[in-house]
Amino acid sequence: MDLHLGTCLESVRRRRPLVVCITNFVTVNDCANALLAVGASPVMTDSPQDACDLIACADALCLNIGTVTESSAELMFRAARWAKQRGIPVLLDPVGAGASEIRTKTAGELLDSGAIGFLRGNISEIQALAGKSSTIRGVDVGAHDDSRAMFDANSALAAELAKKYSLCVGVSGPVDRVTSGERLVLVENGDPLLPRICGTGCILSAVSAAFAAAAPQDPLEAFAAAFALCGLAGERARALLGPSVGPASMRTAYLDALYTLSGEDLDRGARIRDVKE
Amino acid sequence: MDLHLGTCLESVRRRRPLVVCITNFVTVNDCANALLAVGASPVMTDSPQDACDLIACADALCLNIGTVTESSAELMFRAARWAKQRGIPVLLDPVGAGASEIRTKTAGELLDSGAIGFLRGNISEIQALAGKSSTIRGVDVGAHDDSRAMFDANSALAAELAKKYSLCVGVSGPVDRVTSGERLVLVENGDPLLPRICGTGCILSAVSAAFAAAAPQDPLEAFAAAFALCGLAGERARALLGPSVGPASMRTAYLDALYTLSGEDLDRGARIRDVKE
Amino acid sequence: MDLHLGTCLESVRRRRPLVVCITNFVTVNDCANALLAVGASPVMTDSPQDACDLIACADALCLNIGTVTESSAELMFRAARWAKQRGIPVLLDPVGAGASEIRTKTAGELLDSGAIGFLRGNISEIQALAGKSSTIRGVDVGAHDDSRAMFDANSALAAELAKKYSLCVGVSGPVDRVTSGERLVLVENGDPLLPRICGTGCILSAVSAAFAAAAPQDPLEAFAAAFALCGLAGERARALLGPSVGPASMRTAYLDALYTLSGEDLDRGARIRDVKE
Repeated sequence: MDLHLGTCLESVRRRRPLVVCITNFVTVNDCANALLAVGASPVMTDSPQDACDLIACADALCLNIGTVTESSAELMFRAARWAKQRGIPVLLDPVGAGASEIRTKTAGELLDSGAIGFLRGNISEIQALAGKSSTIRGVDVGAHDDSRAMFDANSALAAELAKKYSLCVGVSGPVDRVTSGERLVLVENGDPLLPRICGTGCILSAVSAAFAAAAPQDPLEAFAAAFALCGLAGERARALLGPSVGPASMRTAYLDALYTLSGEDLDRGARIRDVKE
Repeated sequence: MDLHLGTCLESVRRRRPLVVCITNFVTVNDCANALLAVGASPVMTDSPQDACDLIACADALCLNIGTVTESSAELMFRAARWAKQRGIPVLLDPVGAGASEIRTKTAGELLDSGAIGFLRGNISEIQALAGKSSTIRGVDVGAHDDSRAMFDANSALAAELAKKYSLCVGVSGPVDRVTSGERLVLVENGDPLLPRICGTGCILSAVSAAFAAAAPQDPLEAFAAAFALCGLAGERARALLGPSVGPASMRTAYLDALYTLSGEDLDRGARIRDVKE
Repeated sequence: MDLHLGTCLESVRRRRPLVVCITNFVTVNDCANALLAVGASPVMTDSPQDACDLIACADALCLNIGTVTESSAELMFRAARWAKQRGIPVLLDPVGAGASEIRTKTAGELLDSGAIGFLRGNISEIQALAGKSSTIRGVDVGAHDDSRAMFDANSALAAELAKKYSLCVGVSGPVDRVTSGERLVLVENGDPLLPRICGTGCILSAVSAAFAAAAPQDPLEAFAAAFALCGLAGERARALLGPSVGPASMRTAYLDALYTLSGEDLDRGARIRDVKE
C-alpha cells in the first residue's frame, strides 16, 4: 500500500485550491461549507461570463447535475471546455443519471467531451452511464442495484467506464470503490446515516475536486483520500453523538469533522484496500 | 376519533414515497432533509424535461411558489397536469399569496387547474386565495389575520375554499386547522419558535405531500398526521433544549425529531380535535 | 462616543422591518434565518413582477451579487430604482467584485445608479470597486490585500469610495471598518472562524439592511450596530463552544446568538472606536 492520504489532506490545507462549482441549488451551501472546512476556497457560479473568468484562475472545476436545466447543461459544456484548455481537473457528479433523460444525456455528453477526469456517483448512476438498466428512482440508489451479489460485477463495470473515458471513477456505497480502470481501491469508512443526510454525496464530489487539485501527482490516491476523509468524518460524528443521533445533528458534526480531522487522523483511520494492480 | 396518525407515519417509512418538489431556492435543502428524515425520497427539479420524467415514476408532487418566476410558474402548471394525469397527489404551498400579484395569480390558477388535492398555507395566504383582503407583508402572516376573534370565521373560510376546489386545506397557526370542507380537524401541537425558523412552513408542506402519497385512503387523516408530526417535532426539540433555545439549535433538533419520532410517539403525542362531521 | 447600538437592535425587534433580498442561491437560507433571528421579516425574490410588488411595501432592499447572472443583474438595477423612488435604504454586497468582469461591472453600475446607501464587502472587493488592483481569488479576500501595513491606506480608500458615492461603506476584516467618508468607526468584535463559515459576510449584509431600515436617523450608527452585533454573536458562539469548535457547530451557535443577544448585551459587548470626526 503506497497511498499517502494524510499528505493529500495536508496539501489541500496548504494550497487552498480554488474550486469553481456549477452545481445544484439544493446542496450548494453544503458544498461551499465542506470545501471551506477541508481548507479549499469555493466559488459557485451560474453564469457563463462569470464562470469563464473564474475558471481562468481556478484549480479545479466541479460539475453537478442535481438540478440541471437546458441552460445550465450548456454552461457546463462550455465550462468543461475552458477547464480542459487550462489543464485543471474536472469532476462530474451525475446526480440522478438514469432517472431522467436530460440527466442521463447531460452526464453522457460531458463524459464524451473528454474533459472529465473524475466521475463520482452512486452505483445506479454508474450503471446508467455504462448503458445498463438501473432501478434508480429519483436521485437515490435503486433497491437492487448495489446488492452484495452484484459487488464484483459492479466493480468491473466501474473499471470499464474508467477505461472507456480515461478517468477515475468513484462509486459511493456501503463499501466505496475508486478505480482508474487498472487499479481498484476499496474504502470501507462511513456510516449508514450519511445517505439519509441530503448532500453527503455532493459534498464528497466537491471535496474530491479539491483533493484532485491539490494532489495531482496521483489522481487515484487523491480521490481515495477524499472518500476516506468523508467516510471517516461520518465515523467521527457517530462516535461523538452515539447510536440514537438524528440526521441534522449528524450533519453538523460531520461538517465539523471535515474541519478538525488532521492528516494523521486520516492515515490512522482510513480503512482502504488496494485489491488489484 | 378514528384518525390513525401513527399508521400514516409508518406507511411513509415503509413505502418511501418519491416526492418531486418544484420549490423555492430558499428552503429547498430543508425540504429535502425533512423528506429524508420522515422516510420519503425527495427529488428537486427546475426543468420541464426533467420534471416530466421524474413525475412519471413519482408518488407525489409538491409545488411551492416561494420564489416563483414566470418560467417556474409555467413549469408548475405543466407539472400539475402531468401529475393529475397519473393520479398522484399534488400539494400546493402558496407562499406569499396576497403579497404580490404573481404569487396570488399563480396560486389561483394552479387551484383552478383542478390538479391540486392539498393546499397548505398560513391564514393570510388562505384569505388572499379566498378573495379576502389580508394584511400579509412579505411571506409572514399579517398581524391581525389570525386573531382569536377571527378563528371561527377563518375556519369557515378554509372550509369554503376546500369545498370550492374539492381539496383539503391545511392552515398553520397557533392552532392548526385541516379541513376537507365537510370535516375540520384542529391540531394543537407546535412551538412558538417554529415560525421564527425559515422553512418550517415549507417543510410541513413537503412532509404533507409524502403523507398524502403513502396514506391515500383518507386524505384528511394523512394531512392531519403530517401537521401533528411536525408540531410534535417542535415540542420534542423544545423539551430537549429548554426555554432559552435559539432558532438554529431548534432547527437541528426539529429535523432530528422528524427522524426519531415513531408512529407510537405520534399517536401518543398528537393533540388533535375533530370538531365537526 | 454617542453611538446607541443597543437601541438600534431594539428598534429592529420592535419595528420588524420587511427586507426584500435579491441574493445568491448559496447563502440565501442563512440570510433569511439571520433576518428572522434579529427580528426582521425577510422575503427573497428572483422575479421582476414579484420584486416590484414586494418593494412597494418593504422597509429595505438587500442586493447581493454572489451568483449574479445577466438577468439577475438586470433585476437588481430595476429593483434599485424602485427602492430609490420609495426612499427606502438599499444595501449592496459586491461578492467577488474583482474576481470576474460581470461581478465588478454589476457592482460598479449599481453604485453609479445612485440608489445604494450602504456598501458591505471585504477589502479585496472594496479595492476592486475603487479601481485598485486586488489579489482576490474567487470570493475570498486576497492574501495581501488586508495586511496591517495597508490598514490605514485601506481605510482611506473606503472613505474615498463613501464620499464618491455618498454612501456608507462597511469593510469586514480582522478589524471591521464602517465609514461615511467623514467619520470612521472601527469594530473589533468577531472571531477568526467566521470567515471559514460560508455566508457570514452575506448575513452581515442582510442584517445591516435590517438595521438601516429600523434605525434610519443615523445610517453610520445603524451600520456599526449591525457589524458589532454579528461580531459579538461570533464571540458568544466561541465562548459557548470553546477553542476546538468546528465551523458547523459555530454556525448554529452564531445564528442562535443573533436571536438571543439583547440590546443591553450589545452595548456592553461592542468594542468600537470612533477614530475621526
